[in-house]
Amino acid sequence: MDSPSFQDILSARARIAPWTHVTPVLCSRFFDQALDAQVFFKAENFQKAGSFKARGAVNAVFSLAGEARGSGVATHSSGNHGSALAYAAQARNMPCHVVMPENAPSAKNKAVRGYGGIITQCVASMSAREAALADVQQHTGAEFIHPYDDPRVIAGQGTCACELMEQVDGLDAVIAPVGGGGLISGSAIALNALDPTVTVYGAEPAQADDAARSLRAGHLIVDDAPQTIADGLKMSLKPRTFECIQRYVDDIFTVDEQAIIDAMRMVWERMKIIIEPSCAVPVAALLANPGLFAGKRVGVIITGGNVDLDRLPWALG
Amino acid sequence: MDSPSFQDILSARARIAPWTHVTPVLCSRFFDQALDAQVFFKAENFQKAGSFKARGAVNAVFSLAGEARGSGVATHSSGNHGSALAYAAQARNMPCHVVMPENAPSAKNKAVRGYGGIITQCVASMSAREAALADVQQHTGAEFIHPYDDPRVIAGQGTCACELMEQVDGLDAVIAPVGGGGLISGSAIALNALDPTVTVYGAEPAQADDAARSLRAGHLIVDDAPQTIADGLKMSLKPRTFECIQRYVDDIFTVDEQAIIDAMRMVWERMKIIIEPSCAVPVAALLANPGLFAGKRVGVIITGGNVDLDRLPWALG
Repeated sequence: MDSPSFQDILSARARIAPWTHVTPVLCSRFFDQALDAQVFFKAENFQKAGSFKARGAVNAVFSLAGEARGSGVATHSSGNHGSALAYAAQARNMPCHVVMPENAPSAKNKAVRGYGGIITQCVASMSAREAALADVQQHTGAEFIHPYDDPRVIAGQGTCACELMEQVDGLDAVIAPVGGGGLISGSAIALNALDPTVTVYGAEPAQADDAARSLRAGHLIVDDAPQTIADGLKMSLKPRTFECIQRYVDDIFTVDEQAIIDAMRMVWERMKIIIEPSCAVPVAALLANPGLFAGKRVGVIITGGNVDLDRLPWALG
Repeated sequence: MDSPSFQDILSARARIAPWTHVTPVLCSRFFDQALDAQVFFKAENFQKAGSFKARGAVNAVFSLAGEARGSGVATHSSGNHGSALAYAAQARNMPCHVVMPENAPSAKNKAVRGYGGIITQCVASMSAREAALADVQQHTGAEFIHPYDDPRVIAGQGTCACELMEQVDGLDAVIAPVGGGGLISGSAIALNALDPTVTVYGAEPAQADDAARSLRAGHLIVDDAPQTIADGLKMSLKPRTFECIQRYVDDIFTVDEQAIIDAMRMVWERMKIIIEPSCAVPVAALLANPGLFAGKRVGVIITGGNVDLDRLPWALG
């Protein structure tokens, strides 16, 4: 099972630099006081296409051989990887096909179309997505760029932790959300190479806790179609990302839906930035375990800011 | 009619530095392309207490003589000046009394209380506010810090434009919203001293357009209790701020309510930052006059990010 090396992450940094932002690191006295810690928010909500997914997508698209350009790329995604891949493909002037579940937020559909992506809708389950994608590939010859089970994508996601380590000295721990595991795998590979004393935590919705259960069980447990407000974290691990997590990740926290909504709203109100529910998950995990981080310097990857403003979680029934 | 000098603004910068942020300047390819201009957003939504008002309030509070500390400060405010003054008074360990209209957003009430401010509610009109304030002053002996008709406050607000001029080279124009005129007056005094070739624009809701009408008429026109979604801009000019505007401000744009809501939402969706309706007003003015800014470098003061998340304008009837 190939995972990217740290050298692959360094190569990705150079490859993606012209098409991605070095995102800022934000601090908040409110959260520092609440946690008795120093918290450094790596603001990937300000990334191109609105999430860290641009890193992996751009790395994958710009790694393709020139002859692949005509037939383009394809993927399935509940949103952010889809718009990131459309953004990356448009940057390289290639077609991009995105299979999306019919319940994906309308803002995410709009974003994919805004970058010139071609959408195919399907039922909201992993098996339905995979079937629809196979069909698209057969008709177009497009190369499948998996949202996370792809060493090029994982290497791209790992560039975020590299930046964070340059931007902040002496981090004790880094925490990132876990969906399919691409971000946490890339982050963990980078952090292990840069400073193996940094503790690496994952955070998951309790209602989509396949990674926490897999880590505890010592073997891969897969969910189909879990339900959570954190729509970016519904995917399950694959053997490649599970292996990275087993090797490098110290622990995975789980948080309930209300804690996710509360943390999201707290970040909006206190920090004046728009974050999506998925990246409220690690913030909620910090708030639920304050003693663990007392006196520590903690990096949190704020993964994205793509939210449907007509369907905010605190306004839903 | 005393207005602060540029030297007063420089003194304010030194005085407020320990208690305020040097806020970042943000750019957005989306807005640059939409306007065929380079737009620099001065992000005062990240300022202490959530708006530029902290600058004027801190300058006023830390300008007070030591013996005034016991009786404290008082003001009337629909929100941001109130929480800014409470923040400033708490920083100097003084009591702070805030008269607020009963229709002020609940998030703003909460913020004032969060900084230890003591709230007195009144009917939503300028005359009712002034009567309630007189009563509070009589009972407490607190010094009134007017939201904008005060040279110390205007000098504090002027520090924002100074920072912007240091952060961005070669600005052609700066645009700021106009409520009572404290921010635009301070900005105009600073900009005129630093570079008189910079064009200074104001922007107002069409439904609270006393400054635009006053500027056109050549004499002060005052509204009582105008209605607009931009709740921070309901105040009318005073002779002091009107004089500054007549002297230094090139033009004032007006925009309708729907344009304000659309611009606010566009900033949330595209820039992933929380801005309140008042600072969407200059953004709406830019969008309504794209030809005017083509090829120019334009600074926009994003005044604040204090929003009631339970009452977002696009979700209201």
